[in-house]
Amino acid sequence: MNGSSTPNLYLALVHYPVINKHGDVIASAVTNLDVHDIARAAATYGVRGFYVVTPLVDQITLIRRLISHWTTGEGATYNPQRRHALELVRIKENLDDVMADIRGDIGSAALPRTVVTSARNQTPVIGFETLRRMIGEGLPYLLVFGTAWGLTETLISTADFALAPVKGPTTYNHLSVRSAVTVVLDRLLGR
Amino acid sequence: MNGSSTPNLYLALVHYPVINKHGDVIASAVTNLDVHDIARAAATYGVRGFYVVTPLVDQITLIRRLISHWTTGEGATYNPQRRHALELVRIKENLDDVMADIRGDIGSAALPRTVVTSARNQTPVIGFETLRRMIGEGLPYLLVFGTAWGLTETLISTADFALAPVKGPTTYNHLSVRSAVTVVLDRLLGR
Repeated sequence: MNGSSTPNLYLALVHYPVINKHGDVIASAVTNLDVHDIARAAATYGVRGFYVVTPLVDQITLIRRLISHWTTGEGATYNPQRRHALELVRIKENLDDVMADIRGDIGSAALPRTVVTSARNQTPVIGFETLRRMIGEGLPYLLVFGTAWGLTETLISTADFALAPVKGPTTYNHLSVRSAVTVVLDRLLGR
Repeated sequence: MNGSSTPNLYLALVHYPVINKHGDVIASAVTNLDVHDIARAAATYGVRGFYVVTPLVDQITLIRRLISHWTTGEGATYNPQRRHALELVRIKENLDDVMADIRGDIGSAALPRTVVTSARNQTPVIGFETLRRMIGEGLPYLLVFGTAWGLTETLISTADFALAPVKGPTTYNHLSVRSAVTVVLDRLLGR
């Protein structure tokens, strides 16, 4: 892992632009448990930052309040482990801001390579073992997950790679985004 | 997989008896999203039945209403995929009733072997690869997960096996039960 104990990996959970059931571009509401569960997964697998992406002011206020409760409020004393997880959460209005923040974090002019978790277009698809090896080489990566019915085509097509979908022994493939993120991290970084 | 397309695997999510933060034995409240997320994971990985275990009448009523909304009510039309997942949910008051139900399901006098996901005592610990192979041999298994701060010692000590904990590259190990169940299923049955 490039001399470091944790991978050079970041996560983004996108609430805009995503699509709804009918394919319309929407801004989805932030689900509290997405923030909690994904922060806990991020802490477990050594992810360096978990970005909640939404441009909606009321949603930003809501997440700020949630994070503050668990990192500096009553929750921090009640459950210090939750505090550690939620300290990884950063709120950004769009992916450009996420990229700028990561660039500041890693102190490099190079942008992290982006990996989306949907394969609906021409973005090169890579398997879990390949990405696991690439992450192990130490370069920074940003995994981008969509809420609602998924990321927009435009967003997918600007990514460097698309990760193969998580599959079980059935044709059913509808994990919650909370569960999907955790499984992806486990396949990429699990012991 | 014993000539079948799906594994001979069942899940139980236990709300009593579990322990709280202080080690007291309690009955935890059912979390709606646990039922949704684990049902979707069960459908994805071909689990045959997902048992929600609680002896509390109000909780049973609550889950019955949730399941009915998504399997026969408005939700069934709105989201048929959710319907398929929630049809896997069965409510039982205790693990004995779960075992009896599985015995009826598999039409055999033999009970499934039980696997807990906590290792706090003398129950033989097995790794994911070993259990994956054992499940592949076709015999029935019941994976038992605890809510709140986990299963009681008594319940753990009566299990046939304890599964090694899910680990990432850090010492932090506090996934939500929703996420942990999905990762365990992915390690045992993922493609």
